[in-house]
Amino acid sequence: MKISIERAALLKAVSQAQSVVERRNTIPILANVLIEAEGSDVSFRATDLDIEVVDKIGAMVERAGSTTVSATMLHEIVRKLPDGALINLTADSAAGRLTVEAGRSNFSLATLPKEDFPVMATAEYASNFSAPAPVLRRLFDKSKFAISTEETRYYLNGVYMHISDGENGKVLRCVATDGHRLARIDADMPEGAADMPGVIVPRKTVGEMRKLLDDDDAIIAVSVSETKVRFATPEITLTSKVIDGTFPDYTRVIPQGNTRRMEVDAKDFAMAVDRVATVSSERSRAVKLQLDEDRLILSVNAPDSGAAEEELAVAYGDERLEIGFNAKYLLEIASQVDRENAVFLFNSSGDPTLMREGNDMSAVYVVMPMRV
Amino acid sequence: MKISIERAALLKAVSQAQSVVERRNTIPILANVLIEAEGSDVSFRATDLDIEVVDKIGAMVERAGSTTVSATMLHEIVRKLPDGALINLTADSAAGRLTVEAGRSNFSLATLPKEDFPVMATAEYASNFSAPAPVLRRLFDKSKFAISTEETRYYLNGVYMHISDGENGKVLRCVATDGHRLARIDADMPEGAADMPGVIVPRKTVGEMRKLLDDDDAIIAVSVSETKVRFATPEITLTSKVIDGTFPDYTRVIPQGNTRRMEVDAKDFAMAVDRVATVSSERSRAVKLQLDEDRLILSVNAPDSGAAEEELAVAYGDERLEIGFNAKYLLEIASQVDRENAVFLFNSSGDPTLMREGNDMSAVYVVMPMRV
Repeated sequence: MKISIERAALLKAVSQAQSVVERRNTIPILANVLIEAEGSDVSFRATDLDIEVVDKIGAMVERAGSTTVSATMLHEIVRKLPDGALINLTADSAAGRLTVEAGRSNFSLATLPKEDFPVMATAEYASNFSAPAPVLRRLFDKSKFAISTEETRYYLNGVYMHISDGENGKVLRCVATDGHRLARIDADMPEGAADMPGVIVPRKTVGEMRKLLDDDDAIIAVSVSETKVRFATPEITLTSKVIDGTFPDYTRVIPQGNTRRMEVDAKDFAMAVDRVATVSSERSRAVKLQLDEDRLILSVNAPDSGAAEEELAVAYGDERLEIGFNAKYLLEIASQVDRENAVFLFNSSGDPTLMREGNDMSAVYVVMPMRV
Repeated sequence: MKISIERAALLKAVSQAQSVVERRNTIPILANVLIEAEGSDVSFRATDLDIEVVDKIGAMVERAGSTTVSATMLHEIVRKLPDGALINLTADSAAGRLTVEAGRSNFSLATLPKEDFPVMATAEYASNFSAPAPVLRRLFDKSKFAISTEETRYYLNGVYMHISDGENGKVLRCVATDGHRLARIDADMPEGAADMPGVIVPRKTVGEMRKLLDDDDAIIAVSVSETKVRFATPEITLTSKVIDGTFPDYTRVIPQGNTRRMEVDAKDFAMAVDRVATVSSERSRAVKLQLDEDRLILSVNAPDSGAAEEELAVAYGDERLEIGFNAKYLLEIASQVDRENAVFLFNSSGDPTLMREGNDMSAVYVVMPMRV
């Protein structure tokens, strides 16, 4: 294999690869990126056995071929080379080395046979559709904060992507929850997605696919099977196993009868919660909300360190209510609000509370109260 | 005590205080800042028993008095309050609380009696002089990288500030070393500093004083005794114990007879070292320098991961030389160079190497070689 690539293009491809590679590997080849050159394309493939990313870029291929080399080290080298450099990669399979040359720099890196590289089996996908990058970005960005980190509840360690019934017909829906809070985000169902099986996209995959979704104009090809999901642009293909488990019936968690409505400026609310939470102890982080006619008092009482209280003007016309929440959860859902106002719908101090952005039903958040 | 202060001024004073306070304290009062209001000034005092910082700012003092309160918590609250806010601090000594009010925010913080606060004993200073902030900044910024982190060699855990003989008369000199590399930085001796005893300024003090030195126009009052050192602006006074030990005779470490002179662009050199070091193993980090007529070849050979080589044009007219260094040490001294060129003076591959910035003798670095 002998190829020449411009530094910027190589850096982008290798960045994506080294991000998928796990820092600590017991299987040496998993630390490597598989480089394959043919025709006028070079592909860079990396995997952690659950996720595989392939980045294909144009290059001057003088001699076709392939090899595998440390993803982190290749990334570091390319990163440190000067901008605009033309980089030559030459594989010497007899010596087991890949030479990286640019200007007066010369590197010779240890390789591992490409035959040992675990290429992910291709799958039959039950559903193929495409969606604009900003639509997918919103679905995952607004739901991922609620993903559970509890490993025993592995079926909550991802975002549940599925087709459901929305207010105005079928929707592509992403749901995440950790039992304390829940996010449910909808988008119009893309054409061809009707038969998509519901899948739980793992947390790491959600993070890795985010890089594909940065380009506002990109159209993402999505393929879904019972066991795998794939997101692809013309250059990058990300394939991931999905979590083998059943996502709980979240619909029962979303309160339907909450009628006590409070509307508040989302940013003011978040800043006030953040301030009063300063005095709370590391462990409890409980904030009390006292609601009265168009008035909200946020308060924290931590016997050891002190107390805090803050008043906010809100729109509220129901009877007096006191309810407590974990400050972190309140802050996280308040920071999801893109428009000005957050609408909270309460029932009693013991029931889950619903929050949405104004009257938009396409993004709904639920948070469990705590005793204060 | 009852005072009103503008947020920005309060934030600055409290930032400095909470930075000195240690995160984990076995003595509760050391987590607190002592606030004392009198006349039209409020002072904020914090200590870790080795360093004391006092920040005095103007304020509307409605009722004089004093109290102590958690430095971290007060800092967090002030930081989160909106810019431009007027903040009221009211101490209620009967209740043992300090009230912090701003707009509709109200905090009540636990206090500890000011009598328990350990105020550092005032000292007799043997020497008092003043120096422009940029002069002191240069002395400490260029030397601190070489401070040892080995706790057993406690007398190397700081910067040795003393008066010495320079090329053109007496100088104020800062030296730091960890046995592998050394930095010796000189400035013209300020008036009144001639009798200053040499002191080892601890690493943490060097970090804390850095904040006093940011203002290019500031003149810093420096006071030195055998046991303490003080740096002061009209607002901030930083007092620190010095390390009770003898700094080794560094002059013997600085090679006098090195004649093999290499001149190189400092930035190009640093970038090349950084690149070739990529393939070196985490532990050894050895880089080999091969010098020949106006040519430097940097190389690393790590059997497990690979090899790297890079050629640089340099000015060198002596005989062929091979010498090895720790890549990290080479990078650190190269990054101290403010002007374009670094001048290296070698002797043999087993002897310490000297580096300076061009022909400027006021900043000299020594680095020990390693076998490659």
